[in-house]
Amino acid sequence: MPKSLIFLTAWLVCTVSFSLAEAQQTLDVQEQVRAYRFGHEKEIVGEFIRLLSLPNHATDTPGVQRNADLIQNMLQKRGVKVRLLQVPGAPPVILGELRTPDARSTIGIYAHYDGQPVDPAQWTNPPFSPMVRDRSGKQIDWEGVANLDPEWRVYARSASDDKAPIEATMAALDALRASNAPLSVNVKFMFEGEEEAGSIHLPDILKEHPDALDADIWLLCDGPVHQSRRMQVDFGARGETDLEITVYGPARPLHSGHYGNWAPNPIVLLTHLIDSMRDVNGKILVRGFYDEVRPLTETEKQTLAQTPAADEQLKQELAIRVPEGGGVPLAEQILKPALNVRGIQAGHVGLQAANVISTEAKASIDFRLVPNQTPEKVRKKIEDQIKRQGFFIVHDDPDMAIRRAHMHVVKLEWGSGYPAYRAEISNARAQAIVRAIETATRGPVIQVVSLGGSIPMYLFQGKNHTPVIGVPIANHDNNQHAANENLRLQNLWDAVQVYAAIFTDFDRSRVQPSTAGH
Amino acid sequence: MPKSLIFLTAWLVCTVSFSLAEAQQTLDVQEQVRAYRFGHEKEIVGEFIRLLSLPNHATDTPGVQRNADLIQNMLQKRGVKVRLLQVPGAPPVILGELRTPDARSTIGIYAHYDGQPVDPAQWTNPPFSPMVRDRSGKQIDWEGVANLDPEWRVYARSASDDKAPIEATMAALDALRASNAPLSVNVKFMFEGEEEAGSIHLPDILKEHPDALDADIWLLCDGPVHQSRRMQVDFGARGETDLEITVYGPARPLHSGHYGNWAPNPIVLLTHLIDSMRDVNGKILVRGFYDEVRPLTETEKQTLAQTPAADEQLKQELAIRVPEGGGVPLAEQILKPALNVRGIQAGHVGLQAANVISTEAKASIDFRLVPNQTPEKVRKKIEDQIKRQGFFIVHDDPDMAIRRAHMHVVKLEWGSGYPAYRAEISNARAQAIVRAIETATRGPVIQVVSLGGSIPMYLFQGKNHTPVIGVPIANHDNNQHAANENLRLQNLWDAVQVYAAIFTDFDRSRVQPSTAGH
Repeated sequence: MPKSLIFLTAWLVCTVSFSLAEAQQTLDVQEQVRAYRFGHEKEIVGEFIRLLSLPNHATDTPGVQRNADLIQNMLQKRGVKVRLLQVPGAPPVILGELRTPDARSTIGIYAHYDGQPVDPAQWTNPPFSPMVRDRSGKQIDWEGVANLDPEWRVYARSASDDKAPIEATMAALDALRASNAPLSVNVKFMFEGEEEAGSIHLPDILKEHPDALDADIWLLCDGPVHQSRRMQVDFGARGETDLEITVYGPARPLHSGHYGNWAPNPIVLLTHLIDSMRDVNGKILVRGFYDEVRPLTETEKQTLAQTPAADEQLKQELAIRVPEGGGVPLAEQILKPALNVRGIQAGHVGLQAANVISTEAKASIDFRLVPNQTPEKVRKKIEDQIKRQGFFIVHDDPDMAIRRAHMHVVKLEWGSGYPAYRAEISNARAQAIVRAIETATRGPVIQVVSLGGSIPMYLFQGKNHTPVIGVPIANHDNNQHAANENLRLQNLWDAVQVYAAIFTDFDRSRVQPSTAGH
Repeated sequence: MPKSLIFLTAWLVCTVSFSLAEAQQTLDVQEQVRAYRFGHEKEIVGEFIRLLSLPNHATDTPGVQRNADLIQNMLQKRGVKVRLLQVPGAPPVILGELRTPDARSTIGIYAHYDGQPVDPAQWTNPPFSPMVRDRSGKQIDWEGVANLDPEWRVYARSASDDKAPIEATMAALDALRASNAPLSVNVKFMFEGEEEAGSIHLPDILKEHPDALDADIWLLCDGPVHQSRRMQVDFGARGETDLEITVYGPARPLHSGHYGNWAPNPIVLLTHLIDSMRDVNGKILVRGFYDEVRPLTETEKQTLAQTPAADEQLKQELAIRVPEGGGVPLAEQILKPALNVRGIQAGHVGLQAANVISTEAKASIDFRLVPNQTPEKVRKKIEDQIKRQGFFIVHDDPDMAIRRAHMHVVKLEWGSGYPAYRAEISNARAQAIVRAIETATRGPVIQVVSLGGSIPMYLFQGKNHTPVIGVPIANHDNNQHAANENLRLQNLWDAVQVYAAIFTDFDRSRVQPSTAGH
């Protein structure tokens, strides 16, 4: 037994009150899973690439259906019983159930199979023609080589966000079956098809199928691991809402020479409006915006204090001399509400630039919410702020009469949104998951108060206040949401180990409910 | 003789010291030109449409050459001697000379045959597939109807800016020839192919061919007539320069949830930078920007006071409740320097919006200059201002080392530019042109201190300080520089009359140099 395994066995026995036999069994299963994965890497990557080849924007109904069909098939092949939960106009929620004889608990695994919109012009390979590339970006004929380098990456939309957990759970089931290692829990899979569009229909679907949420804990598998590459568990996620802003100038485009200095320039109106809402340090200037923000609890503060800082590494990697936030570390900055201007568009720049005063200017903003903010309260505060800037607000295209009647007219189009969620960090079931992951990764997991990103964790607590935690598996530098999204193969391999450990060890490593608070 | 003609004859005799016979002859020629045009409208429109069908962006070398070939042919057909003036890498300047036996004077006519860039998606018809439309926008089968309604318009890139004067001068020559009406002057045509790209090579071309500028007066035929539809003469034009700004964020696109509030948002940096340069009322906030602006002369003030205000009509037409400038009329606002943000671009808006922090944000600005500003002085002041905002300025793409070393990095790409020009309003030759136009339009011309737009008037004065004036002919609502650019047919017909009057009457209506100051 290598030295690290001796340590791990000791740690398992001491910390988690395993018997020595149980600890050995856990380690054996992990070794068998690893061996299985090593022998089947190309098979796993092949299945993953087939899944990534399917365009998956939530509004692409036939595309989404092809994804759902393939995933249903992947689940059924592993003996998982599948139902498609649907409401009209929404991609199906794929619900899979795998029952284990005599299991005491059910673990819910959530991931999503839809992806962010793509701008193919910005991609090195087309976003739905997955390619494996090495560190230098060179394309690899992965089917032709003997072994796959774990530092190679698969490039495709949703490689990391969020089809990787779908493939990794399937490979974990295959590995356990091949190893004759029994699961200790029932597993419920929920794969959503509309997360990147704000999970608009998920609440309705869950209302129609309340039993879908029955589980002892939900693991939301989305987002990246820590920037140090160590696994992390998220005890919360920020909420979100978003806003499209259109500011109006003259009714027709005007020559900037003949009308400049006189016809209102909508771009300049928009830049001033944005600047009235946010400074360059991330501070939101909207009156009362921070009023209902719940301060951190003592446990949250302690957990935050133990989160390793990746700031210096990231500053180097991202070429950032001075981050926003005036010196507050990243881990703390993402526990605050955020206003991100994600797009701005008016007229033309570069070779297409013409000496014109535009008729309108557009900006797109995403807000990140923390407890106890709600999308409704944010919307009210932003609209009040915009009114105070002298704008007349409409929510549909304004006609000429409206534009003639008001000095500044703005159209606001709000996306749907949802609130933040925070689990109780000390919750026993949540801590049992932490320990199972530590078994797989042979070292401590980073516990994070809240994911900076948004996943609809709040929905999964249901009426039983089931604990909901985030178990991300993607590499942090995955270009999530952007061009050249990718997954590092080692992260896929790690995920297989993690899911296998959770499936086999949750109940064993679980502190009984009576001792919750441990 | 209709009543209006009696008045006009009396006015010509009294104001311009014509003999009654000369006045009658002038009016007769105008009637003959009108009759010719009326009988040949479709022929004129047909030739115009052939010219408009040729793509003419200055960087489209084969396209520009096709334009030059056609225009050369159009001139030669009218007996004009043509030379193409060229320097490497630039569209040819077409120089045409039409000599008139015993003429005392030479009139230079300048127009340009290149056009602004096009964004075909925004056009109703493709920009180089000209169409005739009625007031409601309905396409007209103009070849199939009996008569052309003068309120119909030709829609195409450069219909107004600036191929209309090319066609109108050709039609005027045809009409005079058909009427056996002799020209009183030599005419020199200069048709440029790079005006919308800033006339970058024109100074070099004129340096190589200094005789090209020999004339007694230059008429720059570009820009729109007054918003009241009355003809105007411009005694100056603003100068210009332009700037592409790129502000940098993180080295790769980042998930706004995981990094928002920490990674610098380049869009927000850009909006704050823009706001530091200009307020919503058109005022430029750059330190010292107005320092060298020459105040208006007494003559300029008087001329400005006589310029009819179109503000109320325009506010209604353009749906502007409150213009920029705090109540100062348009005619006065365009005598000031201007900073127009003509484009801004980063990330995505609308359906393409993704929750990303962008790596960069771009804006495009055009500046309008007045006497005695220069592009060089403006550039210095703007760069100083941007430095004061804490930016490190580069003029080429910054590498990672530069981005790591500086808090905020900005790339500035300056276009070429040129200074403003103002003629002496009381100049005798300029006033002779005003009177010739008044003969054609049968009423007073609006005299304008300076065009708001930019044309390189300053170049044409040469070393002899030849007076240079602007004689625009396009309708004011021509969508110049934008999608659906158009020319109203009546404006084309008016232009034919105006050029015919100038060609036949300049010397007759010209006050001798000795009486300059009249």
